[in-house]
Parts: sequence; C-alpha cells; structure tokens
Amino acid sequence: MNVLGKKPGRVVDKPTNPMVTPLLNDLYQFTMAYAYWKAGKQSERSVFDLYFRKNPFGGEYTIFAGLEECIKFLANFTLTDEEIDFVRDSLPGCEEAFCDYLRGLDCSDIEVYAVSEGSVVFPKVPLLRIEGPVAVVQLLETPFLNLINYASLVATNAARHRFVAGKSKLLLDNVAAGRLFGIPLRGTHSHAFVSSFMSLDEIVDKALRSSDGKTTCEDFVSLVQTCLAKIQNSSSLSGIFSETNKSELAAFTSYALAFPSAFLALVDTYDVMKSGIPNFCAVALALNELGYKAVGIRLDSGDLAYLSTEARKFFCGIERELNVPDFGKMIITASNDLNEETVDALNKQGHEVDAFGIGTNLVTCYSQAALGCVFKLVEINNQPRIKLSEDVTKVSIPCKKRTYRLFGKEGYPLVDIMTGENEPPPKVGERLLCRHPFNESKRAYVVPQRVEELLKCYWRGNADEAREELEPLKEIKNRCIKQLENMRPDHMRRLNPTPYKVSVSAKLYDFIHFLWLNEAPVGELH
Amino acid sequence: MNVLGKKPGRVVDKPTNPMVTPLLNDLYQFTMAYAYWKAGKQSERSVFDLYFRKNPFGGEYTIFAGLEECIKFLANFTLTDEEIDFVRDSLPGCEEAFCDYLRGLDCSDIEVYAVSEGSVVFPKVPLLRIEGPVAVVQLLETPFLNLINYASLVATNAARHRFVAGKSKLLLDNVAAGRLFGIPLRGTHSHAFVSSFMSLDEIVDKALRSSDGKTTCEDFVSLVQTCLAKIQNSSSLSGIFSETNKSELAAFTSYALAFPSAFLALVDTYDVMKSGIPNFCAVALALNELGYKAVGIRLDSGDLAYLSTEARKFFCGIERELNVPDFGKMIITASNDLNEETVDALNKQGHEVDAFGIGTNLVTCYSQAALGCVFKLVEINNQPRIKLSEDVTKVSIPCKKRTYRLFGKEGYPLVDIMTGENEPPPKVGERLLCRHPFNESKRAYVVPQRVEELLKCYWRGNADEAREELEPLKEIKNRCIKQLENMRPDHMRRLNPTPYKVSVSAKLYDFIHFLWLNEAPVGELH
Repeated sequence: MNVLGKKPGRVVDKPTNPMVTPLLNDLYQFTMAYAYWKAGKQSERSVFDLYFRKNPFGGEYTIFAGLEECIKFLANFTLTDEEIDFVRDSLPGCEEAFCDYLRGLDCSDIEVYAVSEGSVVFPKVPLLRIEGPVAVVQLLETPFLNLINYASLVATNAARHRFVAGKSKLLLDNVAAGRLFGIPLRGTHSHAFVSSFMSLDEIVDKALRSSDGKTTCEDFVSLVQTCLAKIQNSSSLSGIFSETNKSELAAFTSYALAFPSAFLALVDTYDVMKSGIPNFCAVALALNELGYKAVGIRLDSGDLAYLSTEARKFFCGIERELNVPDFGKMIITASNDLNEETVDALNKQGHEVDAFGIGTNLVTCYSQAALGCVFKLVEINNQPRIKLSEDVTKVSIPCKKRTYRLFGKEGYPLVDIMTGENEPPPKVGERLLCRHPFNESKRAYVVPQRVEELLKCYWRGNADEAREELEPLKEIKNRCIKQLENMRPDHMRRLNPTPYKVSVSAKLYDFIHFLWLNEAPVGELH
Repeated sequence: MNVLGKKPGRVVDKPTNPMVTPLLNDLYQFTMAYAYWKAGKQSERSVFDLYFRKNPFGGEYTIFAGLEECIKFLANFTLTDEEIDFVRDSLPGCEEAFCDYLRGLDCSDIEVYAVSEGSVVFPKVPLLRIEGPVAVVQLLETPFLNLINYASLVATNAARHRFVAGKSKLLLDNVAAGRLFGIPLRGTHSHAFVSSFMSLDEIVDKALRSSDGKTTCEDFVSLVQTCLAKIQNSSSLSGIFSETNKSELAAFTSYALAFPSAFLALVDTYDVMKSGIPNFCAVALALNELGYKAVGIRLDSGDLAYLSTEARKFFCGIERELNVPDFGKMIITASNDLNEETVDALNKQGHEVDAFGIGTNLVTCYSQAALGCVFKLVEINNQPRIKLSEDVTKVSIPCKKRTYRLFGKEGYPLVDIMTGENEPPPKVGERLLCRHPFNESKRAYVVPQRVEELLKCYWRGNADEAREELEPLKEIKNRCIKQLENMRPDHMRRLNPTPYKVSVSAKLYDFIHFLWLNEAPVGELH
C-alpha cells in the first residue's frame, strides 16, 4: 500500500462507492497484466490518455468529473487475497509468482495528470494522462473509465438542465444526494399521502401554535374551512370550482399541521384547478393567519405551462381580493418526468414554474446513457504509439502531450491545442499555428491573449508534496459555473451549437502523419 | 432489527451494494413519514402495488428481477444514528420523538408478495404487493423502485440480446460480474497490448513446453515465423497479404507464450485481413504443433459481417491446405459497441461470429435507460384507493388484488388477470370473463387449461416459515429461459410484436369504475 496521510489534509479517503475495487474490471486487463508479466514487460514505462470522442446530448461541450474518485481509487488500490484467488482461477495456467506480483501491487509508481474537475472539456483532448508500469496502468483502465464516464456524463446532463432552466430556478434532488453532496432538498408528499386520507374527521390533534409562539389555534381544521369558504365567497375566485375534494383537504391540513413552516402541497391528485389549488390556498391562508408562510405547490401531471400560469393567476387573485401580501409569489414546483426538452418547451410556451424536480432523466442520462471515454496507449519506453483505424475519428493522437487552452481578446476560450511534451508552450501575444489533427486543410493562426495549461499533476506515487490538492465540491462547482459562463454563447446554444475547436501544434501534426504512414499497411491490388 | 437466521438457510444477506441504505431515498418519503406520524396515522395498514406501465425497448415483455435485493433490504432495514441526525436536520421543526420512532423502525410488520424472480411480466400487473404500516411502506418506495427498476430493465435487455443472438452464441461480461454471478468470462487483450510491442526481438524467454509436457520447443518465435512462411507459401492463402505487421506478430507470440491453452487474439489493430488474421494463424499453427488448440480471434471494428466471413474462409483454407483438422472451427468473437440492432443487422447480412461481447449497451440500457416502475397505494385501513389521472394509462387499479396467469390449450400463456382478494380463483376448464381494466369494449371469455397464481409471499416479518425461499441464481435463470421459450412467438418478435393481454375480473372492473365515478370531480360549464 501507498503511504498516505503523512501531513494533515493529504489523507485520501476510500472511494465513495465501496463496490469500486480493482476487481471492477474487465478480465482482459488481468489477462494482459499476466501476459506483460510473463514477457517481462510489466514494468515498462507507459503513457495512456483518457479522452472521449464526441460531446453528449447533441451538444458541443462536456463537464469533466470523477477525478476525485479516481485519486481515491489509486490511494486505496490493493487486491485482497480473495480477489487474487478469483483472478488465479480465471486465468488458465496462471503461475503462483504472478499472484505474488499482484499481492505487492500498488500505485506508488503511477503519475496522473488531469484537467481540473468541473472544467468544460472537449473531444480528443486528454482528460487524464496516466503514466506508469504498463501492467499496472492497464489495471486502471476499466475502473477509471467507469468512474469518469458516468460522472462526466451526469455532470454534463446536470449543467445542461441548469442551462435550460435558467439561473433563477431551483433544481431539486433526493436525500442520498443531499447527504453526500449538499444538494438542495425540498420536502413534499406523494399522491399516496393524499389518497391515504378520507375526511377531515380523521384529524384528531387539531391545535397549532402560531409562528411567534404566542397563541395557539385550538381548531386549525375549522380555520381552514373558514378560509375555504372565504375563497368560495369571493366572486372572482370561486368561478373555477364548486366543491373541492375533502380527503385532499384533510391531507393538506394534516401535512400543514406537521410542517407549518414548510407547507408544500402536491395539488394534482384529483383536479388541479377545481380542487388542488383552492384546497391549498385555504390551508395556506389559515397558516397565514397564524403567521406562517406556505412554501407553495407541486404539479406532477398535465399541461404544466397552462396549470402553472392558471395557478399563478389564482394566487395573485387571492393576494388582490383577500389582501394577502406576497401570496402571488407562492413557489410553483413541477416534477413529472422532466428533462431538457420539456423544460425548453415550457420556456417557449411561457410558464410560472419556479422549481423543477428532475429525477430519472438526470441520473439515468436517459437521452444518452453513455459518454464513451477511451483509454489509449500513446507512448511506451519513450516510443510514441498510434492506434490506427479505417474510421479516422478513431485514430488516436500519439505521444506524451501537453495541452493548453488559448483565450481571445473578448476573454472567451478560442481553441484547445495539444503539443509534444518538450515543445515550448504557447506564448501570450505570439502567433501560433493550430492544426486540425487529421484534416490537412483545417488550420488557423491564433494570437492568444491568455494561455492556460490544462493538465496538472494530481497523483505522483508517494510524493505528496508534488501534486495538486483535491478540491472541495464547492470550488469544483464554482469553476464549472464560471467556465460555462465564459464560453462563447454559440457553443452553448441548444440548437445547432458551433463546435469548439481542438487542435495540435504543427510539429505534432507532422509527427502524427509520419507515424501514420509508417504504421499503415500498404495495400496490393490483385 | 428483525430476528433472522433462526434456522440454517434462512439467513438473509446484506444488500449486494452497500450504498443501498434506507437513506437511498427521496426526502419526501421522510417528510411523509413525519406527517403520518404527526397525524397518528403511521401504523395504518396500507397496501401498495409496484408495477410498470409500458414494456421497454419497444418490446412486449419484461423480465422481473431485483426481488432478492429487496428482501435483503427488508431484512437489514435499520437507520443509523448518523442517518437519523441527517433526517432530523432535513425536516423543519422535526420533533425528537419522531427520531425515537425512526430508531425503533424495522420491517417486522411488513408483508411482501411478489412474482417469482426471472418471470416474464407485463404492464399494470403488480410485480410486488407491499403491505404494512403506511409510514414504513412509504420508506420502502424509493429503495424498492431503485432495486427493481434497473434490475428488471437490464435483465430484459440481456434477455433481448440473448434472443437476437440465438441460443448457440456465447455472450461475454466483465470480471466483477463473473465473480458476483458466475457469468462466463473470456480473456483476451486490447489494442494497447499490441501497440506496446515493437518487434520479435523483444521476446526474451522463447521456450514453450508442449501441451503433453513431454517436449520443449526452445524457440517458439522461430516456429511462429516458420508457420507464417508456410501460410505465405501456400498459393491459395497468400493472396491477401504480402507482409504482416511485426509488432503485432510479436504481441500475439508473447500472448501465446503466456496463455498457450487460451490463445484469443485481437486482430484489428493494424489490418484484419492483411495482417491480423495471417499473424494469428501463424501463432495458432505453431501452438498446434505443440499440441495446443488456439481459441480464436476478436474483431473490434470494421464490417463485422464481411470480416468474420472472410476470416472463416481463411481458417477453412488453412484446415484444407495445410491439413489442420478443426482449424476452420476457430471461435470468432465480436465486440465494438454491439447492441440488439447491430446483432440483428449482422444476422440479416449473414456472419460467422460465434461470441458477442456486449458491454456498454447492456449495462447502460442505452436504448432505454429507465423502466419507470411506480408504487401506488391501492388500499388503506381496508378501504380501496384509486389514483385518477386525465391520462388513462396513469390511472391505478385499486384494491388488494390477486393475480393469475391463464394458459391455453397449446400451453402458451393467454392472459393475466387481476381479481379482488376475496374472489374465487379462476378454475381450469371454466369459462371466465376477462376485461380490459379501462376500456369497456375490450373483453373476452377464456377457458384456461392451466392457472398459475403469480404473487407469492416472500416476506412476512419475523415469520420465516410462512414465506418462499430466495432461489439460487441458476433457478431464476432457468425459470426465465423456460418462460421465454413458452411465450407465443408473436409476442416475442422484434418487429411489431403482439401485446400480451392484461385484464381484470368483471367484478373488479365494475368496482374500479364505481370508485372512478365517485372520486372524479364533476365539471361545471361557465
């Protein structure tokens, strides 16, 4: 095991998900480790790039996430005896000495360079560069791909939902996420809660102390009924309903007795406008008389644009007719299988929703369930390696590389550029040729106003002092927000966004094409 | 905590994924639990159904899975002090007595009836019926949905892939799955392994003992080269290649030295027909001379139909020309982002693939990332409950129900029927009216030749003896295969499959519509 935690603040925790062990792997990583070991090649110094080939969700940007989990994985990398037994049984003819080798494995010879977590990233540019003994790095491929793929995909999905919802809206998540990551939670109830009530008679403890604690309303149920009658008797409000559902009213009243300061009601169990909204308003008005302020409503079905607009009108009507300040500002929450498209459609129709509960579509990344990162050998024993393919998008960019983001006059990022490790870095104010890695005709001169090196060292074996600290989630989140705001808007729009440019230096371009010609077989016509 | 493990074989393990705790939940479940508790309703006996509304992947069947994990969850259900602290902090105004209530919670008052795991199931028919104190059952909703949704979706996806691949093909998975579930693994190597070699000179230890252990070939590298020359000199085989890639040959030779009895080579790093296949055959022939039998090749890019067919021809050519028995039967494995559609397309074109590696598309359920199960209250305090919706597909079927599958003369399942709990069960040979739950005009008489009750008790609090045993995976798998084989073929076809019929008894139909009329608000025209 790696020696960790020598100074305070440098202890690296275990992976968040205890299922993430070295055995969360493809058999072929162990098969290869064995073959490398048999060939005496296991310690050859290799460099691998982890990158993706295409931005997800039809967009032109991706958010990089999952780095912290990768570093935790490295810090805690060790194979248990039970796991080694399983590997032995899975590899035909496996020699015992290989098991001893596995037993001694750790990540003290590994170096990981990565983009800062939360960064906006683009296809082909390495997110991580992993260096170390080839057999060990190979064992990192599957876990790293698993950790980066989903985290980056879901972070991108979340960013896209935030983008379409707009900054002012609230987006909600579940309890486990709240506990792990401090994401806002909002308590409400389900249809089952409403259905579980029959009538107001069920409510036994009817007393509610006022918000300031000075008085107690002994019969909150009667107060609610009085308020409902008040709405009913207001000529401009009563038009839409005659009688509301009594079991719903009982459920709302009961819920308000439990959460007088956090009353948020699901109003579509029976009929939103004929029952849910008037019932909610009756309870909210009763709470108001005791000094509480209701939070708002949740809509989980139907035409959310129409219903939210009608609900807002009703709330404003109450504010005006019954003279209740701020009643019109009641929070309207929407849930019901929302995603980027439905929120976008709501925006186009016009709506009054303040908060969106994005559930299934966020976590499953329903519209695209995988990012498809790859992990490619780019150098071994100081020899650059290229992976060819008939499909040019699948050709890998060889060499141990450095990567830079170049910014223009307006402050926007203009282009990412990859260079060989030993090339001089791009300089502010100096003209630089940026070339498409594979397309000869695509090239442009750039005079950067600012240059940012993208890959930083996050893991260097035992040498704690030489690497970047893992950042708190808040900093990662702030970086993400800042970088997204700093993108040129045409890269960000939902419809036909402009692809961000990714390039290589002239020198790297030439080298790629030299290698390509050398490696590609020459055809023969028969 | 529930008292478990009183007799051997009845101990229920912890959930496989340690992240599955009661806090893997939506806040609103705790909010509601608090509101039920405040209203003194927390122990009211409730019945919830867990079901889905639509079969996934454009098909007309679903495989039920995840039950074992639900039962493990029930058996181990307990909130830690830390979790209770978090809940307290998340609920505004939460009383300490509620925390005491949570501390004492277990599932000893819960009963769970479920379809047997691995069964073929259909929309609207309950997969689980959960009974117990309403506040506790509510806390099971989110974990159960999480455990059933993904497991059933991925099981259905796997079944669909098996269906389209055909029984005789091998489907492969990764090490973690192999260890957890005993799924077949097949070791091979990646492009990086091939790229990591430069030339045959790198191979230092060239000796290979023969399969029978009687002789040792001191220079396996030379033997491989001799075999390559043999292929090269055979007039009918050499046509497609002049010179093969030497680093690829070195990688294959080295891999064969590590796994002489399990040689499976990835042949598309450079060029499948011009380099990969001849190189593979050279190594396979060399192994053959020492009494080993190579396993085969893996194709990871390009036109898999064409390449597999050409590879097969080449292998058969070797068998014929060089007189090597069975060489033509070499196993051809395909990988490269395969899914149902691509395997189906391969079948239509004709191919020679023996084994498919289905990775990303299987586990992410790429073509449909969520099943969308729901958890609906159907009865509380012996009162049936219905959830209405303007969208008729979202109306729930009320009452504590029994469910049966009715089989016809040919042995196929004909229809599933739901009845009220106390209705007499359908009888073999007796005519029975099966009604569509919502569509008045859809109904049919059925005379079942066999009747199977679908819901069985898998959890009844502390009463171990009264419930079904959890089955080993093998039995679940066999049930699944048997039930799939027993479906009428038109339900199973990929294109325009016939929907399987799901019905309710005449009595339940009448009751649903009686409740519906009572609950639905009557509109007023203004």
